[in-house]
Amino acid sequence: MAKDKQFVTEITPQSEDFSKWYIDVIKKAELMDYSPVRGCIVFRPEGYEIWEHIQRDLDRRFKETGHRNAYFPMFIPESFFQKEKDHVEGFNPELPWVTEAAGEVLEERLAIRPTSETMIGHMYSKWIQSYRDLPVLINQWANVVRWEKRTLPFLRTSEFLWQEGHTAHETEEEARQETRQMLEIYTQFVEEVLAIPVIKGEKTPSERFAGAVNTYSIEAMMKDGRAVQAGTSHYLGNKFAVAFDIKYLDRNNELQYCHTTSWGVSTRLIGSLIMVHGDDRGLALPPKVAPTQVIMIPIGPAKTRDAVVARVDELYAQLKQAGVRVRVDDRADVSPGWKFNEYEMRGVPLRLELGPRDMDNGQVVLVSRITGEKRVVAQDQLVEEVQKMLDETQQAMFDRAKQFRAENSYSVDTLEEMKAAMEKKRGFVEAGWCGSEQCEKTVKEETGATSRNIPFEPETHKSNCLVCNAEAKHTVIFARAY
Amino acid sequence: MAKDKQFVTEITPQSEDFSKWYIDVIKKAELMDYSPVRGCIVFRPEGYEIWEHIQRDLDRRFKETGHRNAYFPMFIPESFFQKEKDHVEGFNPELPWVTEAAGEVLEERLAIRPTSETMIGHMYSKWIQSYRDLPVLINQWANVVRWEKRTLPFLRTSEFLWQEGHTAHETEEEARQETRQMLEIYTQFVEEVLAIPVIKGEKTPSERFAGAVNTYSIEAMMKDGRAVQAGTSHYLGNKFAVAFDIKYLDRNNELQYCHTTSWGVSTRLIGSLIMVHGDDRGLALPPKVAPTQVIMIPIGPAKTRDAVVARVDELYAQLKQAGVRVRVDDRADVSPGWKFNEYEMRGVPLRLELGPRDMDNGQVVLVSRITGEKRVVAQDQLVEEVQKMLDETQQAMFDRAKQFRAENSYSVDTLEEMKAAMEKKRGFVEAGWCGSEQCEKTVKEETGATSRNIPFEPETHKSNCLVCNAEAKHTVIFARAY
Repeated sequence: MAKDKQFVTEITPQSEDFSKWYIDVIKKAELMDYSPVRGCIVFRPEGYEIWEHIQRDLDRRFKETGHRNAYFPMFIPESFFQKEKDHVEGFNPELPWVTEAAGEVLEERLAIRPTSETMIGHMYSKWIQSYRDLPVLINQWANVVRWEKRTLPFLRTSEFLWQEGHTAHETEEEARQETRQMLEIYTQFVEEVLAIPVIKGEKTPSERFAGAVNTYSIEAMMKDGRAVQAGTSHYLGNKFAVAFDIKYLDRNNELQYCHTTSWGVSTRLIGSLIMVHGDDRGLALPPKVAPTQVIMIPIGPAKTRDAVVARVDELYAQLKQAGVRVRVDDRADVSPGWKFNEYEMRGVPLRLELGPRDMDNGQVVLVSRITGEKRVVAQDQLVEEVQKMLDETQQAMFDRAKQFRAENSYSVDTLEEMKAAMEKKRGFVEAGWCGSEQCEKTVKEETGATSRNIPFEPETHKSNCLVCNAEAKHTVIFARAY
Repeated sequence: MAKDKQFVTEITPQSEDFSKWYIDVIKKAELMDYSPVRGCIVFRPEGYEIWEHIQRDLDRRFKETGHRNAYFPMFIPESFFQKEKDHVEGFNPELPWVTEAAGEVLEERLAIRPTSETMIGHMYSKWIQSYRDLPVLINQWANVVRWEKRTLPFLRTSEFLWQEGHTAHETEEEARQETRQMLEIYTQFVEEVLAIPVIKGEKTPSERFAGAVNTYSIEAMMKDGRAVQAGTSHYLGNKFAVAFDIKYLDRNNELQYCHTTSWGVSTRLIGSLIMVHGDDRGLALPPKVAPTQVIMIPIGPAKTRDAVVARVDELYAQLKQAGVRVRVDDRADVSPGWKFNEYEMRGVPLRLELGPRDMDNGQVVLVSRITGEKRVVAQDQLVEEVQKMLDETQQAMFDRAKQFRAENSYSVDTLEEMKAAMEKKRGFVEAGWCGSEQCEKTVKEETGATSRNIPFEPETHKSNCLVCNAEAKHTVIFARAY
């Protein structure tokens, strides 16, 4: 790198073209790259590590609530998809098929899993005999494939990574409780760890998972006002139990079908957190999932350099020891200013600067990526001060995202009002809905927005359907969505 | 469960039929189940958790040596396999092909990765421009598929889980150092964590990875004397760099091909540790990867039961708090004797018994699954005593496996001696080899054994080839292998 190299962001401003901004940011920050296979991306280390932090935290929450991990084959015999009518209709259009292997044409072609209800249902029917075998609480971390027409890195790719929980229960009540519990875990995780506020609610029938009795979701608002479904949890009733013959002898020695659930989040969470927190300078990563939480940059003239770098290295060791994910950039041929821009672009939450005057004063300068706040702190308080500022940054990111959502949420009574709201600015629109699929369709055709969910806790309870003006059955959040 | 239920092992003795013993054990202990897809198994929670402990430990070692994880698409365009001659020859016979997706026939069919040198090579050629970009040190945890004719749960399945490291370097020396470093990491991991002694060495040319310049392996002896290749590390020279155009501008501003490596271990490690440590009573799991390290069983008559269970729960909390993976089986309708057998079958390293007399004496009884040793320890010393006994059990398992290997290793000078050794008992046979493929083939045809590797540290340096009696170039370990 030349000494005089200028930092050029090459990032399209969000206001100019949000989609282009998104691609610019994730490529420049080396989170991903396109692959030679249509719709499939490479998760580069900087992007994959975010997923690793997501996995670690969620996995702990799953295990604390009694779930265990397992792994099922990714190949699903074609006949399995015929067993549950809604499921086959929902997924058939997106399946890739293995038709040959080891030089021979297969007798029955194999789909690559788009989700594993069928394979897991088949196995549960073998494992579950009695109420004593219940509940079965299993989660799988896996790759899945949905051959999508339009793809977008992280948010919609042909192959993606996810977790899928699959549980089987004695009673409807217990299964429904599980469904709600997992939605609650997702909510806590996404809000606390990814700093993204979400709206919890139930999907309308047309937006349900293929084969579910009830689908619940958490919905997040991106900075362009569009929605991302950040997690879903399904109560499957005994539809899959009937399709795959998952029966148990109950406490009265009678055969019963199980009640099952499934729930999942995917690598689209990475896309979401970029679109919620990023700005024109680049990424902004919540400290809890940032691969690098603190970047340390020595500054000052060449003559004091060795001493400054030596002190930086000592402080690095202290932070590292305390479990902070910290890195030093002590390259001599790149200017501090260039580095400042570079790590802001990469979304590193905190920058630590140390120069000769800081050495004399026994202090360092901490700068927040989010608020821009500069804080001069004593070196002998460094670990506490860094942890405090990381916590504050995490909280500030959540507060800002919540504020942004509030500023871009509307409450309307008629389709005309909704059109006006959607034209002015994209966002979440709360409205009454009579429950008919036709009215939902009309909204989509007229505004491009789909029903996101029926919030458990709407801001206001609407009395009339925004389309037909009949009595509202539900208050619904509508938005354009990824 | 009936009170009088008898514990029946249903496990075939190892001496009667080792393969049957293996299947009996892994099914009964619920490590796996067969799936409806040929050659693919389900990793049930008890089996998958072993893999999770393997992952966590190895992943830490990889990261400590500067590697980062990433994720690449599992689909590989057919044309990629044509680029490296040896690679295509080696893997083509085992590939499954996706030929259709989303209702359309693909223009170019896609293989499902059997390994990712080609896809990763393609991406590295985009990412690497200059010596400043090197080394690239990336690892991937993923599923891979090799459509094998003969399969065996864990040891050889059509779909399996593994990690594959792929690195690119400026110089041959650095790449060779990486190759050896990873073999060393595998050795330490397998010996320290899985308690399996291994022989480090280089594969003969006929046993090399398809496309490698040198392949190194660690070889372990199962209890039937057969070998398992427990890990491999390959120096790929610049064969893949030439095939995929991975070039960099060196320090003299000249274009050079990178030197690359790859290395991997897979879920066959689970099969290996079962076959190394198990016995006629069932599994025996090394404490470091056992899903349950200590099973606590309250004993004694009904009238003292509540008090005993209450005390067990207190001690459980202490062990849990100390990070021990501990479970309590306080079922009242199952006898302690039945439980003892059950958890021995499941390979739980330590059993803790607590009865009314132990209550009075402030003690517990600890029993080792491996040695059968009973140790009465004070309750107020419990955590230390348990950790000590787990460590001793881990060490005892390694020592026993090493002793077993010593007792089943032979050193021979002629093919006749080798035949005699292999007939008497399977095991590892050390012999001289002239280096010709023909002599290696003769050994295989006459004895069923293949060359495992050329050990870095052979017991003795052999002077003549066991087949042709010409001067030996190498001392080789031969064995029948899984």
